[in-house]
Amino acid sequence: MKTIDFTKLARPNIRSLKPYEAREIPCKVKLDANESPYSLPADKIFQAKNIINRLNRYPDPEAKKLKKTISKNLKVNTDSILLGNGSDELIYYLITAFGGPVLYPVPTFSMYGIISQACGEKGIEIPLDKGFDLDTDKMLAAVRKYNPKLIFLSSPNNPTGNCFSADRMLKIIEASKGIVVVDEAYQPFSSEKGFLPLLNDYKNLAILRTLSKIGFAALRVGFLIGDPGLIKEVNKVRLPFNLNALSQNIALEAFRRKKLMDSQIKNITSERERLFEELDKITGTSPYPSEANFILFKAKNANAVYQRLIKEGVLIRNLGSAIKDALRVTIGTPEENNFFIKALRKSAGGKK
Amino acid sequence: MKTIDFTKLARPNIRSLKPYEAREIPCKVKLDANESPYSLPADKIFQAKNIINRLNRYPDPEAKKLKKTISKNLKVNTDSILLGNGSDELIYYLITAFGGPVLYPVPTFSMYGIISQACGEKGIEIPLDKGFDLDTDKMLAAVRKYNPKLIFLSSPNNPTGNCFSADRMLKIIEASKGIVVVDEAYQPFSSEKGFLPLLNDYKNLAILRTLSKIGFAALRVGFLIGDPGLIKEVNKVRLPFNLNALSQNIALEAFRRKKLMDSQIKNITSERERLFEELDKITGTSPYPSEANFILFKAKNANAVYQRLIKEGVLIRNLGSAIKDALRVTIGTPEENNFFIKALRKSAGGKK
Repeated sequence: MKTIDFTKLARPNIRSLKPYEAREIPCKVKLDANESPYSLPADKIFQAKNIINRLNRYPDPEAKKLKKTISKNLKVNTDSILLGNGSDELIYYLITAFGGPVLYPVPTFSMYGIISQACGEKGIEIPLDKGFDLDTDKMLAAVRKYNPKLIFLSSPNNPTGNCFSADRMLKIIEASKGIVVVDEAYQPFSSEKGFLPLLNDYKNLAILRTLSKIGFAALRVGFLIGDPGLIKEVNKVRLPFNLNALSQNIALEAFRRKKLMDSQIKNITSERERLFEELDKITGTSPYPSEANFILFKAKNANAVYQRLIKEGVLIRNLGSAIKDALRVTIGTPEENNFFIKALRKSAGGKK
Repeated sequence: MKTIDFTKLARPNIRSLKPYEAREIPCKVKLDANESPYSLPADKIFQAKNIINRLNRYPDPEAKKLKKTISKNLKVNTDSILLGNGSDELIYYLITAFGGPVLYPVPTFSMYGIISQACGEKGIEIPLDKGFDLDTDKMLAAVRKYNPKLIFLSSPNNPTGNCFSADRMLKIIEASKGIVVVDEAYQPFSSEKGFLPLLNDYKNLAILRTLSKIGFAALRVGFLIGDPGLIKEVNKVRLPFNLNALSQNIALEAFRRKKLMDSQIKNITSERERLFEELDKITGTSPYPSEANFILFKAKNANAVYQRLIKEGVLIRNLGSAIKDALRVTIGTPEENNFFIKALRKSAGGKK
């Protein structure tokens, strides 16, 4: 029998690509993945008749009903919307359709870099400034030098939690001949209004949104909003049945419960302020201000604190080498946050 | 405001790419998409508790439970399995990981060509012989000339319905330095046992299966089975949460109802034999033998027959230029098939 070195057979850009690692760490309180701690009443949703019929039929390839609902909700035309199996898939499609170079500041959402490499496109990483805002000079220099086809700006940014300055973002959008994708996964938790109102002013601006952070990570529903000409090109590389029928239908039910979702978001942002104060007290260092559903904070011996929290039953995110001594905690329910605060006091010690 | 020609901004291979067209044609009896006419009792499935919990949490990125179930079912190790959001996505990942050229016979499943073009890889199309079997000489010549990284063989083949000769497939697998993917989407309807038992003999053989044809098209669950080394490379380009939580859990329920699924498959293959006889009588020409859940048949003025069937409320597939005068009908329930037969008698006339 032939032996094959599959790594050698793979495209050169794939050889060194590390798959996303999903270690499963048992915990009582899960605050590591920026999920919402709230789920909508699933039993009621599943009683809705349109969800349980016709498992044998392909989903609507155009997801017309869901697009119409999003269209009304965000006040954009349906031909400005493309739906993805999570935002991840839309990032894949954007890079497949337009290619690279792909520019993004770091630290940021890791998938911009991973997907660029998977697609064999050059990723250009420009460090954020000391306040975690965009380094305009360096970003603009990179725009001039590389003429990137795509620029990804996550605002509010993951894992830093802040929104980038709107004027800095606009400078980059104006300077770029390529497409600037503002990833607003965390926008619902922000006090700023986001870039949707600017879509009509900048043809090369596109926006990513998702249901994953506001209660529906299980579904994998992301949406890209942009110029119909842009949407048309990205749609060419979309798999026809990329959004399964159940996710389409449950997402519809989610939008019907918008008021409940909004009140859950309000709970989360109010808990964020409380947690911010507590973190300040416990660590003795002010955490980073957050416009998202998580807080980035520094702790002495962050790695040891992270490990001790796991022993206490709390899982948060250890940023490791990306930002020294920094940990990221997702905002949970008040009870989960109390559990975390208590465990952190035990684990981090310091001032009370 | 800047104007942008997004088509020009897109990669050259995307510019001429036509998106998959999903025209929606209203009908009483839908026999165009090779779906199963049977759905498992959805209400019972949705009462299963593990399906309705935790919409707010990300799905298991490794889909461990489902992989374990498939592993038992197909008698392959879990590290030989990769799950996709439909087979479509796995084809995307295979081409992203290994690149082209991509070789496949035609006519066949259209996505091999569409995805190759989307990924910017050369697709090489070799016509089937007159009996719709592989043209071994031409295929082997193409293997030598182009050294394809990937070869896709859909067996049973869509839209022709036949299995390719096993000895011809083996010659191609043996001659190829790249990977040969045998797409067994329709294998459950075939009297042949398929290529799974040969996986241990050919390291460059991989197999695609799906739940889409056997009652679960709504879910989008496909699986790739192959050497762990191959799976490892493809997994590098997989999006971490590509299979949503509901589809994972409902697929598990599907496998628990394997006996029911098997009896539905039996109904379909028995109806296929009946439909074959009827088509023979009505059209006056023997349809093409089928090992799948559809039948390809010729009809005089096929296009007109297709249009008349739509008026009668029956939607089937018009192959247009791919195979002259040929139509493809999916096997429905006995009632649906009767409705189709009656409508076809009216539409195609000819011998009774």
